[in-house]
Amino acid sequence: VSDSGARGPRPYPLPPKSRKNKVLPEDLKTPDSHVERDPRLIRLTGVHPFNVEAPLSDLYDEGFLTTKDLHYVRNHGPVPLVEDSEILNWEFTVEGMVERPLKLTLRDLIRDYEQVTYPITLVCAGNRRKEQNVVRKTKGFSWGAAGLSTALWTGVSLGDLLLRAGIMRGARYVCFEGADKLPNGYYGTSVKLNWAMDPNRGIMVSYRMNGELLHPDHGKPLRIVIPGQIGGRSVKWLKRIIVSAAPSDNWYHIYDNRVLPTMVSPEASANLPETWKDERYAIYDLNTNSAACYPAHDEVLPLTGGPETYKFRGYAYAGGGKRVSRLEVTLDQGKTWTLANITYPEDEYKLAPENEILYGGRLDMSWREACFCWCFWDLDIPLAQLRDARDVMVRAMDDSMMVQPRDMYWSVLGMMNNPWFRVVVHKEGDTLRFEHPTQPTLAGGGWMERVKKEGRNIVNGFWGEKVAGEEEA
Amino acid sequence: VSDSGARGPRPYPLPPKSRKNKVLPEDLKTPDSHVERDPRLIRLTGVHPFNVEAPLSDLYDEGFLTTKDLHYVRNHGPVPLVEDSEILNWEFTVEGMVERPLKLTLRDLIRDYEQVTYPITLVCAGNRRKEQNVVRKTKGFSWGAAGLSTALWTGVSLGDLLLRAGIMRGARYVCFEGADKLPNGYYGTSVKLNWAMDPNRGIMVSYRMNGELLHPDHGKPLRIVIPGQIGGRSVKWLKRIIVSAAPSDNWYHIYDNRVLPTMVSPEASANLPETWKDERYAIYDLNTNSAACYPAHDEVLPLTGGPETYKFRGYAYAGGGKRVSRLEVTLDQGKTWTLANITYPEDEYKLAPENEILYGGRLDMSWREACFCWCFWDLDIPLAQLRDARDVMVRAMDDSMMVQPRDMYWSVLGMMNNPWFRVVVHKEGDTLRFEHPTQPTLAGGGWMERVKKEGRNIVNGFWGEKVAGEEEA
Repeated sequence: VSDSGARGPRPYPLPPKSRKNKVLPEDLKTPDSHVERDPRLIRLTGVHPFNVEAPLSDLYDEGFLTTKDLHYVRNHGPVPLVEDSEILNWEFTVEGMVERPLKLTLRDLIRDYEQVTYPITLVCAGNRRKEQNVVRKTKGFSWGAAGLSTALWTGVSLGDLLLRAGIMRGARYVCFEGADKLPNGYYGTSVKLNWAMDPNRGIMVSYRMNGELLHPDHGKPLRIVIPGQIGGRSVKWLKRIIVSAAPSDNWYHIYDNRVLPTMVSPEASANLPETWKDERYAIYDLNTNSAACYPAHDEVLPLTGGPETYKFRGYAYAGGGKRVSRLEVTLDQGKTWTLANITYPEDEYKLAPENEILYGGRLDMSWREACFCWCFWDLDIPLAQLRDARDVMVRAMDDSMMVQPRDMYWSVLGMMNNPWFRVVVHKEGDTLRFEHPTQPTLAGGGWMERVKKEGRNIVNGFWGEKVAGEEEA
Repeated sequence: VSDSGARGPRPYPLPPKSRKNKVLPEDLKTPDSHVERDPRLIRLTGVHPFNVEAPLSDLYDEGFLTTKDLHYVRNHGPVPLVEDSEILNWEFTVEGMVERPLKLTLRDLIRDYEQVTYPITLVCAGNRRKEQNVVRKTKGFSWGAAGLSTALWTGVSLGDLLLRAGIMRGARYVCFEGADKLPNGYYGTSVKLNWAMDPNRGIMVSYRMNGELLHPDHGKPLRIVIPGQIGGRSVKWLKRIIVSAAPSDNWYHIYDNRVLPTMVSPEASANLPETWKDERYAIYDLNTNSAACYPAHDEVLPLTGGPETYKFRGYAYAGGGKRVSRLEVTLDQGKTWTLANITYPEDEYKLAPENEILYGGRLDMSWREACFCWCFWDLDIPLAQLRDARDVMVRAMDDSMMVQPRDMYWSVLGMMNNPWFRVVVHKEGDTLRFEHPTQPTLAGGGWMERVKKEGRNIVNGFWGEKVAGEEEA
């Protein structure tokens, strides 16, 4: 049994070194004045609360694992203040429909339960929402395509805790509640009990990220982490685990993280409580998605004097343990497609010796078929082809043979946006300039706003472009 | 504990009464001259081997459960002959990477193991393949939209058998082999061991369908049944269960039931053994799909003198335990959508008393979250709207928020076809006539062949139609 630390090479990725940050001047006048942050993060909801993504290129450049510095953050309100000296004394409960309700501290959790460490990609349900907001304003703020991050999370299987507490007959759900007091109560949500008990799902109660105790923005000192599901279910600053017969009735469970039917307008949604409460519209598993990171938005590529190809590259992911089985690229608006290379660094953890311990947790990857992380794709495209292309689009297919669609599924919260990711190619003299769909937050830029301003319908099935070829006749 | 039989109403569906059929004249000169069949079934590969689907309306009219008479059949060759007197003596093995290889008879299986009964929808990976064949000829024959059926299957959990045999370290797959001798050997395939051991997946070894011993076309006397996966994994006439470290190397596992990347042509596929062997392209879980059953193809609807609405209706399904969370209908080619009603008769089995026994098996449905069956949708559409519509299209979304795409994903075997299902509306005097995409097998009919013959590109993103409205400017 080997333990964590820098004792020679391991056959799997370890995180890049994280930074020592400071409290930023803009946070000093907010309730988050105790939180040290990386100034590279892009704030999506003004100064406070703190909702951020990294610049897409910076995120990609960090590689498979994201540091706490660049990991996206979704905070609904002020970050609870927990002193370092109080971390091990943090109390939480397992209650509700259990035979033996538990009240335990983080110290108890570490001492009394088996510890595991998994690489897990978390994705905000709002990733790529800016594209929806350009089509029609949703109730959500404008994420770009960097609303996702991957880290090594260490903690205890939620199922182990529940077994210790003893589940009562009739229980069907597990609710989580955090310490973040918000206008509509503490943040809370629920998942199905069945998932919590399924080792393939890997749901955990976690207190370490990339080997470090949790950063305040990521749930210090304790949070839920759910692989393959939207980040909104991975409750931070965890205080209560409640086993129940019904889904959570927390305001945030009902009015957040849902994909209402596309015909429900923001205006109509204000008067449809039964539609909001319909669990069929609640988002759990991530849908299949992808984006190009390079070329970056506004990157300029000389057509002469350099290499004869350009390596397009980016990320993709699927949800619910599914895996991306192919990533395809089109240069002719979907008429023909080319297969990109795919790499899954997650697979390298399966090369670890049996019973490998990392950051105090068992790296328990060899038996699992479910996939918990993003993957990377790349494709060398000849400049001669790029020069003649109007755009480059990518789509992923998952192992259930579902493929990202051409069409956006607009919905009132603007979540789970996953149409083909389109990068426009502009010929400018002896160079090419690339244009992403959007830029995060209120920053301008991107072909969607440009085409919309030109008065074209960007959801006409052809991105607002004239339809090419014989079909126009 | 109640047992099967017609003892008063149950809170869940029971199958329609099946027929007593005869050997059909056309089968007399084939190796299947011992098999009694229903003459309503549509033969898709000539007289022999027997590959059939029911007329779509007949399938829909039978309701949630399909009789053996109308259940689709996919036979690669002759049906093994098993005398009734030999059913209980049928021998099969559990071998390979197991501690205690088993050789047992069907009699042993019934006597020594717990029996379960589940409603399960089986779907051929080729369902709706005719649409792909119209776009470009695939290597597969032309299924219409009735390549699926639902029955109550009784048998033993595969996981129970494997636990009895004892799984060796390093095992990752379970291979199945049938008794049907084919040009490339016995039919065989494999699934992941992890799935076989997962109670949520419900994989079983089955000997009863709708309470009757298996019909020869459905695997008499013993078969695998895998909920949520393509029918091609549910091996019939089961002889061997082999636990292994690698996927099956059976010819049919490698060269059937795959979705190769769309750019691989039939010609190129002949020389790409590594592509065929790439497990990423093997199909297991079904993708999300739907079709309209009523109006039927060529159904004529008077615009006057009758009701002012027409009830469109059909089926939908998702795979891998997922559920259809919404079904949407468009009358304006995807610009706007309307929500249809969805019913899941499968849910009614959860109303059964605890430990309910049906057909000798425990109806073990209350705790499971995974979905094993199709659902039905319907929507009343005012005739005034239908009259003005060029077509009616439907799409399903599953609970991972993946939606059926506008675009067909063509592939060389023509499998997993699931774009929006489009019914064209023809105004003919004082009536409307409806036109489905295709008709099964080589029969003509359907808008796809018609539009193609008119010289239009049916995969232009607009079904070969002129693009309407401002986008043409």
